[in-house]
Amino acid sequence: MSVYLHDIPLDQAKSVFQDALRNANLWQILAVEEIPLDEHAVGRTLAEPVWAKMSAPHYHASAMDGFAVRAFETNGALLTAPKTLVYGEQTTYVDTGDPLPEWANAVIQIEKTEPVTAAGELDENVRQPYGIRIREGTTPWKHVRAMGEDMVATQLVLPAGHTLRPFDLGAVAGCGHVSVRVSKKPCVAVLPTGSELKAIGEPVAAGDIIEYNSLVLAGQVNEWGGDGIRFPITADRFAAIQETVRRAAVDHDLILLNAGSSAGAEDFSAHVIASLGTVLVHGVAVRPGHPVILGLVDRTDGEGVVPIIGVPGYPVSAALTGEIFVEPILARWLGRRPYEPETIEAELTRKHVSPLGDDEYARVAVGRVGDRVLAAPIARGAGVITSLVRADGLAVFPAGSQGQPAGAKIPVRLYRTTAEIDCTIFAIGSHDMTLDLLAQFLTGRGRRLTSANVGSLAGLVALRRGEAHFAGSHLLDPDDGSYNWRYIERYLPETPITLMTLVGREQGLIVPPGNPKGIHSLSDLVSQDVLYVNRQRGAGTRVLFDYHLGQAELTAEQITGYEREEFTHLAVAAAVAGGRAECGMGIMAAARALELDFVPLFQERYDLVIPTEHLNSDLLRPLVDLLQDGDFRADVGRLPGYDVSLMGMIQTKNGIV
Amino acid sequence: MSVYLHDIPLDQAKSVFQDALRNANLWQILAVEEIPLDEHAVGRTLAEPVWAKMSAPHYHASAMDGFAVRAFETNGALLTAPKTLVYGEQTTYVDTGDPLPEWANAVIQIEKTEPVTAAGELDENVRQPYGIRIREGTTPWKHVRAMGEDMVATQLVLPAGHTLRPFDLGAVAGCGHVSVRVSKKPCVAVLPTGSELKAIGEPVAAGDIIEYNSLVLAGQVNEWGGDGIRFPITADRFAAIQETVRRAAVDHDLILLNAGSSAGAEDFSAHVIASLGTVLVHGVAVRPGHPVILGLVDRTDGEGVVPIIGVPGYPVSAALTGEIFVEPILARWLGRRPYEPETIEAELTRKHVSPLGDDEYARVAVGRVGDRVLAAPIARGAGVITSLVRADGLAVFPAGSQGQPAGAKIPVRLYRTTAEIDCTIFAIGSHDMTLDLLAQFLTGRGRRLTSANVGSLAGLVALRRGEAHFAGSHLLDPDDGSYNWRYIERYLPETPITLMTLVGREQGLIVPPGNPKGIHSLSDLVSQDVLYVNRQRGAGTRVLFDYHLGQAELTAEQITGYEREEFTHLAVAAAVAGGRAECGMGIMAAARALELDFVPLFQERYDLVIPTEHLNSDLLRPLVDLLQDGDFRADVGRLPGYDVSLMGMIQTKNGIV
Repeated sequence: MSVYLHDIPLDQAKSVFQDALRNANLWQILAVEEIPLDEHAVGRTLAEPVWAKMSAPHYHASAMDGFAVRAFETNGALLTAPKTLVYGEQTTYVDTGDPLPEWANAVIQIEKTEPVTAAGELDENVRQPYGIRIREGTTPWKHVRAMGEDMVATQLVLPAGHTLRPFDLGAVAGCGHVSVRVSKKPCVAVLPTGSELKAIGEPVAAGDIIEYNSLVLAGQVNEWGGDGIRFPITADRFAAIQETVRRAAVDHDLILLNAGSSAGAEDFSAHVIASLGTVLVHGVAVRPGHPVILGLVDRTDGEGVVPIIGVPGYPVSAALTGEIFVEPILARWLGRRPYEPETIEAELTRKHVSPLGDDEYARVAVGRVGDRVLAAPIARGAGVITSLVRADGLAVFPAGSQGQPAGAKIPVRLYRTTAEIDCTIFAIGSHDMTLDLLAQFLTGRGRRLTSANVGSLAGLVALRRGEAHFAGSHLLDPDDGSYNWRYIERYLPETPITLMTLVGREQGLIVPPGNPKGIHSLSDLVSQDVLYVNRQRGAGTRVLFDYHLGQAELTAEQITGYEREEFTHLAVAAAVAGGRAECGMGIMAAARALELDFVPLFQERYDLVIPTEHLNSDLLRPLVDLLQDGDFRADVGRLPGYDVSLMGMIQTKNGIV
Repeated sequence: MSVYLHDIPLDQAKSVFQDALRNANLWQILAVEEIPLDEHAVGRTLAEPVWAKMSAPHYHASAMDGFAVRAFETNGALLTAPKTLVYGEQTTYVDTGDPLPEWANAVIQIEKTEPVTAAGELDENVRQPYGIRIREGTTPWKHVRAMGEDMVATQLVLPAGHTLRPFDLGAVAGCGHVSVRVSKKPCVAVLPTGSELKAIGEPVAAGDIIEYNSLVLAGQVNEWGGDGIRFPITADRFAAIQETVRRAAVDHDLILLNAGSSAGAEDFSAHVIASLGTVLVHGVAVRPGHPVILGLVDRTDGEGVVPIIGVPGYPVSAALTGEIFVEPILARWLGRRPYEPETIEAELTRKHVSPLGDDEYARVAVGRVGDRVLAAPIARGAGVITSLVRADGLAVFPAGSQGQPAGAKIPVRLYRTTAEIDCTIFAIGSHDMTLDLLAQFLTGRGRRLTSANVGSLAGLVALRRGEAHFAGSHLLDPDDGSYNWRYIERYLPETPITLMTLVGREQGLIVPPGNPKGIHSLSDLVSQDVLYVNRQRGAGTRVLFDYHLGQAELTAEQITGYEREEFTHLAVAAAVAGGRAECGMGIMAAARALELDFVPLFQERYDLVIPTEHLNSDLLRPLVDLLQDGDFRADVGRLPGYDVSLMGMIQTKNGIV
């Protein structure tokens, strides 16, 4: 057969697959199983409704510790004209939960009775006195839990399709059941294939990829109520993959064949599926994840077919293929509603362009700044698993929309609760490694820190647009050696701002171990024809570099690689470590982290620029406290190249506070 | 010691307990354990941050199938002036994911190249031709996934306190880890005590209670990340309970001692805890659940203490004690954020009075009717586990508030997602057993049916206030024998209404098996001095009863028990079955369900009264469809005493549609 890859719309792909499953009697609960009614039934989905086998309570029960009575015999009792009921004839003691005697129809709480002797004295035999004196009448069925008050035999207690919660089990037990009939857990084989894959823990060389998609897919399957079974890695050979699929098609309900789903020379998935069954769909108009395959293979040991999904190899594509295709099938097989995430309406922080023909699932960071809920796209490729880790939700840009302008209100399917969103501090601006530590310490104080690294200047611009709670900034004023105020006055003239100093830090040149080119100053960059890697325009480090270039009477044109921009200190260090550049400017900590050499040149101050309205909010209080916290200061002080003596210094426009 | 029970405010109780735990070094992660990085790590909470051990990618990788090049050598290539790069010298083939050769800095997609021979002809050796012809230049790092694009070695990948999701595992594996350090699962002993308790499956007599609180509590503990261990039932003897607690205090982190937490004669919990340690709190001002005990017992086999909670016996109290006291401790021990449910603002459908001194946790049904989100309190006692099962959320009425008036906006902590709330059909009015079947069938069609049984008239009044999507009603017009329209015109004169008939049903007298008093008509109720149980005012069955009383020239005063009201057919049948009454009027199905006799007297029609605006909504479409569905009709037809011939008949004010 010839492999084609022709993207069809998502809805169409789903309905082709569903129709095929329906024809194979696989668009329904797979099987019913009866399991004991114990705590492990939580999370299972009822395959059949639960009807009450007996009433609860199954008898009339006293709802109080007290005395059972006939209500009409209490009529007329008054504070000033008490009545006495004779024990054994007109009343008897009952504890909470005791059955009511046949003749009784109400209970009087013990504290509303006086035990008395025949002579009318207080009786010491409190629970079996001669009689009880009451000073108030009662009404029928008062303080009685009538039979069936909770559940009446034969009533519906829980519908089929309901996923059991802890207290549901109580109700099922309470109406007389000892087991529950639930849908069988679908058994899903996860098949990693690829000659470049290495299992977790195996040594890796250049070109090797750590295989973790099967971990993500099996984890998803388990979370959605199935049973994910990871297979060992199969090499990229047609016969080997075919054999693995044949083995999986014996005793699994669904097969996820990971990678090789595209149309390249070593993409065998479609061929294998065609050789064992039918390729129904190859290519869906969805990004990331478009080279997905939906098919059926013949069951190896008997009648029928096993659905198979060719899952694309990029990790974000693989995880989203799970959400888009696997979850709804598991929901159907379990007989439960498909998972529907909480959705929030958020304002897009910047224009987002999406491919015309595809539904695009963009990962976004979500935060509440003032009254606005903001969604900032995490603009990274399908290979970047951390774009999912950092995402607070998914924004779906439907095919044909071509994206949305900045400020557009878009629905976001949340990965977090709105409570988590509400405790998120949205940071933007320059990157500093201390922010990682800050994030870690904030987690311990009930806050989440989300930071977008766009550079110092872009951070101030974002603050002006009200898009963050603070911006990290280290912008030098070349005139007076001060930090940040000059730029704040230019970019945020109207906004009351407070500066809190995070750290002082050393900036310098990051070079390979041993400093092979012997670089000791900016002019060496030119004289040694060094391949430089720069920071992006607007970054404080870029400003610093340009300033000192000018001081050294050098120009950008003289620096080879000046136009190559990275967005963080660590990315610069990684470029040097990876041989893509011979030198870059950054902080000492980044150099040390990747075991590179560092040529210190300048000291600088890194401040948090905080709109004063946010500074005093509940949300930011833990941040402000942390900058005075001894443990945090000590941990930061241990990082190489940092000076914590100014940490927590507060300044307003009028000077240090 | 003397047992006292003096309710203190919830916040105070929590802080007393927390201080004691803090002093015992138990207000922190209990222990760290290292577990393998496999799919079972999902749901575990990181005890330490995850820092990247290696970068991802850990080498510069081609992002496309194509040819690696030096970007500067492609400069100047044009559609009309192609350039040829010599294979092996200037270019080499790379698959997606392959490492970039040292000398290369960009990749050109295979489809943008032409393989050529030295003579400039097309080369058949597509991937290793003599050379490639290109008609467009490229830029450095184009189609390259640079080392560290996803994660840079040493960066923070996930903070401590983060609960692992499937794709988090991918990131942790991708940056070189083979295991994760997570907080140990707290081990929680759940100890049911009580001589009246029977384990699930044991036979029960009057006075016995099926023990299921331990099931609910253990299920909760597991769901919150702990390990719930159920102990067998211990009888109500001080020494036996003391011994069980001593056994649990060997190797558990927390003990939940269920029931006996009040101050009654057989409530041993506080005494036992005092004998083995300290009672810190006995009684918290929270309803349900106030007789809670918070304490510490000495660890049986060594140093230190084990926290113990005396959990009240009523099932709703027990489950809420779990939510209020146990969950936050587990969160602290796991190092994660306490669970914060989604909260929605809803309008209270009716006045709710709550006890002045206590925080009250009221279970409410929540639904969206038109533009309003409504919360209807499920006004039932702490013994009614189904009040939790049916609840869509909890409304907290804080101490001192004394409740709220109808229409007040209150925050509701949801038990369901807002997506589930949005697919909820809110029904009110008269009860019919067919509604249980309807609920079951609607579940299969993506809808949830929540019904409040208030009787036919109250249902119409609720519709007038816009508080439901439909009302079930069977109100006879005594003048012309028609159903419902007369009352709709009186109560809903302004609202366009459509009636859909659900069923025709037989009404009659429900009597004990064998009809011992020989009742065959309403006049027999008087002549035989029968103890009657009535339906509440406004119920269609009550209207029918009153009408026929009048026809038989009888008065309410002649009927013994006329004033005793039940709210459903099944409750009336249960009253007869339980001996609380000798007769009640209701439907045949209710009598049959409890194996009672039935004296048929009248036929009546049960309709769904639907405001026309809702009838045509997406929400109600599945309901409308169901009334035309053969399977549903057949299932209802199988219930005794029902006539389905009119099912689905549609009427408006102007007649049958």
